[in-house]
Amino acid sequence: MTSKRVAVIPGDGIGPEVTSEAIAVVEATGAPVEFEEFGINSGRWHRGEDLIGEEELERLDTSAGILLGAVGDPAVPSGVLERDILLRLRFRYDLGVNLRPVRLLPGARSPLRAANAESVDMVFVRENTEGPYAGTGGSFRVDTPDELALQDSVNTRRAVTRAVRYAFELAAARRGHLTWIHKTNVLTHAGRLWAKVVEEQHQRFPQVEVAYQHADATCIHLVQDPGRFDVAVTDNLFGDLVTDLGGAVAGGIGFLPSANIAPDNQHPGLFEPVHGSAPDIAGLGVANPTGSILSAALLLREIGFEEQATAIEKAVNAAGTAGRLSGKTREISSAVVEHLDR
Amino acid sequence: MTSKRVAVIPGDGIGPEVTSEAIAVVEATGAPVEFEEFGINSGRWHRGEDLIGEEELERLDTSAGILLGAVGDPAVPSGVLERDILLRLRFRYDLGVNLRPVRLLPGARSPLRAANAESVDMVFVRENTEGPYAGTGGSFRVDTPDELALQDSVNTRRAVTRAVRYAFELAAARRGHLTWIHKTNVLTHAGRLWAKVVEEQHQRFPQVEVAYQHADATCIHLVQDPGRFDVAVTDNLFGDLVTDLGGAVAGGIGFLPSANIAPDNQHPGLFEPVHGSAPDIAGLGVANPTGSILSAALLLREIGFEEQATAIEKAVNAAGTAGRLSGKTREISSAVVEHLDR
Ligand SMILES: CC(C)[C@H](C(=O)O)[C@@H](O)C(=O)O
Ligand SMILES: CC(C)[C@H](C(=O)O)[C@@H](O)C(=O)O
Repeated sequence: MTSKRVAVIPGDGIGPEVTSEAIAVVEATGAPVEFEEFGINSGRWHRGEDLIGEEELERLDTSAGILLGAVGDPAVPSGVLERDILLRLRFRYDLGVNLRPVRLLPGARSPLRAANAESVDMVFVRENTEGPYAGTGGSFRVDTPDELALQDSVNTRRAVTRAVRYAFELAAARRGHLTWIHKTNVLTHAGRLWAKVVEEQHQRFPQVEVAYQHADATCIHLVQDPGRFDVAVTDNLFGDLVTDLGGAVAGGIGFLPSANIAPDNQHPGLFEPVHGSAPDIAGLGVANPTGSILSAALLLREIGFEEQATAIEKAVNAAGTAGRLSGKTREISSAVVEHLDR
Repeated sequence: MTSKRVAVIPGDGIGPEVTSEAIAVVEATGAPVEFEEFGINSGRWHRGEDLIGEEELERLDTSAGILLGAVGDPAVPSGVLERDILLRLRFRYDLGVNLRPVRLLPGARSPLRAANAESVDMVFVRENTEGPYAGTGGSFRVDTPDELALQDSVNTRRAVTRAVRYAFELAAARRGHLTWIHKTNVLTHAGRLWAKVVEEQHQRFPQVEVAYQHADATCIHLVQDPGRFDVAVTDNLFGDLVTDLGGAVAGGIGFLPSANIAPDNQHPGLFEPVHGSAPDIAGLGVANPTGSILSAALLLREIGFEEQATAIEKAVNAAGTAGRLSGKTREISSAVVEHLDR
């Protein structure tokens, strides 16, 4: 097997410490992967440098995939790092799907008493390129009593179709059930487009049962009846909230991986834990690397190393069953490595 | 005391059955209130009639307050009843604040294991007139592969200030702590206005401690650490999601009241349980009337009957302590009436 080059952006906060454990686990699988690290983080912003250089962009563009640690530094104005690193790459590579598998891992404790909370095993497909993330809009009559700020949600048939089709394919390959989540009774313009696209794709996948749920009701169901979800698809902003909520009901977002992928182009995907940079615990060696390790597994699968991806996922499960997914960062990754079936 | 005229819109689904119990409880307090009922519901839509007639509007306009049951019928296209009844009244009376007290009632069971879940006692102040609820936006190149739907979020300094100021006043009168919730790192235009308004109002209430939280992180905290919230303020759409989530973590939205009020005008307020029309259980006599009963208490307080409002709230607590807030609709309201301290 020819080896593939994976770009690594450890980022800020706990990003570097979890990412290095994920790399160690990948290396232990023997996957023919070569890692190239990029010092893209808030330090550059503090030094007044570009967050991503032109040459770096070229290296990223030609990588097989990107493993990201975390973006975020409380000393940088809100939104700058997010937009100039994370969102920039999602948009540059037109990564239309943010895939977030949410599963209560063996050994993890659900915060819920609900009877079916122990069997949470769902996959969120979040549209990843538009909605209010487009960033369009603006301000008017700034600093007057009549100030007005507009924030647009952009919804194109192309991007909505891409995410919805992906979700149907996934649902067809799983339990044949898809929930789509929106707020069609209020967001009528966007809602109509989403409803139309869901209906169109449903015709291509008649075997999949489809249920609609308002985003507010979803928040209730995720707490009261989390086991009812299998595959769910939603827009970028609702997806941001409900996947964090899903992570919380599945024992905490520290366990959650995500894959930003392009179902319709050849750009590198971006793989990152769902958690943020958690500056309060950075450097203490207590961050949970599971989300990052599982993100690396998703990356391996996406670039063709299915066997090693599955090996990591099995090892995480086995480490969980052995009660070893809590503790110090290093202890958790060592447990995963020990449980790799080689 | 001169009696006041309260308009009642029982609405659809379980709306009528919970509303009639709320009325019975108010009557049992002896509050000098005269109820006028309006048959504003989906039946009219099915018969092709206007949802609210001109003469009715005049009666509503001059009422002291409006008690609403629930809006919603699955046989009516999504959004029609919501926009033509509920949102119409919120907008017509410029009801700038949607106040949602979220409290785990005595005897109610939290779905969470969290240590502090038993002490959930928070108040959400939701901006109630704008954000994406403005409904502005539109569609372009409809039914072509290039279809585009835009949905605007409208944010004015006037409305944001009104909600934020109200929240500061409330926080100052409670524990002196206010959380404001947004997604400033992505919704930068709207977020900048919100941040500026929060800062301005903070200067008027320096004694209140202020914390900012992203809406996605809020979803996590509400599950992991619900007891940490006291007063929280947020925009219309985030408010829609996080208050439903708050209700779920406080034992279910059946217990939750809400008050749509105008801090800056003399229009009648609109009071409604947070739950919807729940058509699946309508007419069975099993809907929980607590949300409606507590909404009636909020209405009484708003129109000047503080004593009777407090009496109802105390009776609900006492009925809860006696384990009597579950069961059939009538049993619950009877329990509240029995516990009224007359
Ligand atoms: C950091 C932020 C921009 C990002 C988002 O909102 O998408 C994060 O919350 C996520 O869910 O990946
Ligand atoms: C019915 C719907 C329009 C409404 C809203 O979104 O505001 C409801 O969910 C609520 O929270 O009062």
